[in-house]
Amino acid sequence: MSEMITHKTMIPEEYVQIDQIPWAPFPEAFSEGGIRWKLLHVSPEMGAWTAIFDCPAGSSFAAHIHIGPGEYFLTRGRMDVRGGKEAGGDTAVAPGYGYESANARHDKTYFPEDGEFYMTFLGPLVFIKPDATPVAVVGWQEAQGAWNAFLEDQKSAAE
Amino acid sequence: MSEMITHKTMIPEEYVQIDQIPWAPFPEAFSEGGIRWKLLHVSPEMGAWTAIFDCPAGSSFAAHIHIGPGEYFLTRGRMDVRGGKEAGGDTAVAPGYGYESANARHDKTYFPEDGEFYMTFLGPLVFIKPDATPVAVVGWQEAQGAWNAFLEDQKSAAE
Amino acid sequence: MSEMITHKTMIPEEYVQIDQIPWAPFPEAFSEGGIRWKLLHVSPEMGAWTAIFDCPAGSSFAAHIHIGPGEYFLTRGRMDVRGGKEAGGDTAVAPGYGYESANARHDKTYFPEDGEFYMTFLGPLVFIKPDATPVAVVGWQEAQGAWNAFLEDQKSAAE
Amino acid sequence: MSEMITHKTMIPEEYVQIDQIPWAPFPEAFSEGGIRWKLLHVSPEMGAWTAIFDCPAGSSFAAHIHIGPGEYFLTRGRMDVRGGKEAGGDTAVAPGYGYESANARHDKTYFPEDGEFYMTFLGPLVFIKPDATPVAVVGWQEAQGAWNAFLEDQKSAAE
Repeated sequence: MSEMITHKTMIPEEYVQIDQIPWAPFPEAFSEGGIRWKLLHVSPEMGAWTAIFDCPAGSSFAAHIHIGPGEYFLTRGRMDVRGGKEAGGDTAVAPGYGYESANARHDKTYFPEDGEFYMTFLGPLVFIKPDATPVAVVGWQEAQGAWNAFLEDQKSAAE
Repeated sequence: MSEMITHKTMIPEEYVQIDQIPWAPFPEAFSEGGIRWKLLHVSPEMGAWTAIFDCPAGSSFAAHIHIGPGEYFLTRGRMDVRGGKEAGGDTAVAPGYGYESANARHDKTYFPEDGEFYMTFLGPLVFIKPDATPVAVVGWQEAQGAWNAFLEDQKSAAE
Repeated sequence: MSEMITHKTMIPEEYVQIDQIPWAPFPEAFSEGGIRWKLLHVSPEMGAWTAIFDCPAGSSFAAHIHIGPGEYFLTRGRMDVRGGKEAGGDTAVAPGYGYESANARHDKTYFPEDGEFYMTFLGPLVFIKPDATPVAVVGWQEAQGAWNAFLEDQKSAAE
Repeated sequence: MSEMITHKTMIPEEYVQIDQIPWAPFPEAFSEGGIRWKLLHVSPEMGAWTAIFDCPAGSSFAAHIHIGPGEYFLTRGRMDVRGGKEAGGDTAVAPGYGYESANARHDKTYFPEDGEFYMTFLGPLVFIKPDATPVAVVGWQEAQGAWNAFLEDQKSAAE
């Protein structure tokens, strides 16, 4: 009986007052045009994470693959997904909901006007080169790392 | 070699124009005060589902347990979760984010003012009696059934 | 900035030496014929759990519904699932693999000969009456509770 | 009402008679020493997959990161995980169970003697260079592709 199941407890509930946390610039390596974000939650066990994004007109995310399913709720503006509706993808118009399935490839996600969306992710995004070679894996751990680094900077600057 | 893995394809992406689908009354067996909802997505493989809820002042959901984790984004109003902040739970104020963990018990979710929230669920809600005895299991299949029944009724009424 | 994401760490890896933990009797409320089990893992965040079952010839599990997907690996013996092959279900013969999907209903899982199987579960089993009314929800928390109670008893008996 | 939820059905159950499907060589890009495998299941929605591996004495898997949690059941032999017990990892001895958490890095998984293990994966493996740069993402889709290519070859050879 050397190994025994220990007593695991329920995961605590969480609450975030979204308008009381700051917007962080989203890494320029993975976006352009001034996208900002707030990390709302990470789930280390499943590898899931949740964030809200503020996207100025003309901004975009770099090419990436969704490793697991992601669901977005566009609350403001317009978002061209997988090239937009004209190119066979979707053009979301607020209020719009989208399900991006595991392995969905998003060559460019573009905001023709100011937009805001909330998104839950299962698993990481893999940012890719045009030939789909992986460049970087951005999951709950990388998201949390970038977010905490931003908060530390804010704190240092305030001191 | 009698059994062979067949070729499974990627799950298709989905898009819902939220303001172009109707509000359905949420079943009175599980709520009171006129809550309405729109079902946005179901995931039969994982048993996940996503919906948006419109909750008038004074409305509430009946006691239930979240079988898997659920995440909400309160976009409007105020929502007392697990009794509200005064009773040791949370009082969400829009814009607010909440993570309700697997096995979270919600004896009453109450809306002191008009509210709207978007929520992703992994697994069903189990509605319960005060002693926690299960009354009904409401998951992706039951949600889809109730939603489709509503759409059929709408369609029949229009004919 | 009242609410901040805290730093969550990776979930620790686990290892269990299966032959060094004892077999516990599986609750008679949910099985008959002397089924024994070992709980190997629980995942509180997803609500997942993993166990191995030892099933004597003639034993069976009571009627239940799989709330999320479950996967089994039958390492020994024979197992009639969903009535067995003759009744439209499956009859697993070791070494056999089965995927039981979310919402799969198992009216009776029967072992015509001694068998052993390993199974991973996402979400709970809901044991049901013949009319599908829920009787009990058995998930990671209930499994862990039953298992720990057994270990405590073993310990007390040894003292 | 332009967009409507369609009726999704339950995922079908599956059964695989493991000893009636062939062993395929595991890609040499990701392993050495003659590892063979059988793909048992893929879950396109969650991005999960399940396989069984046959590992001769002296074989090993190349360095990789588990993007989501993985659980193994070692049914035969011995497996050094994360460097083995001496290096702070685990040395599994059959019958052994292991939980490898999301983001677990496995620099080398080594088999000092012949072994066999069954494993369920949520999400892909990312094979990496020593500095953790991603080399290849191997998930349900890549696993299915490799497996089907092998079956096609078998079929062609038999004709």
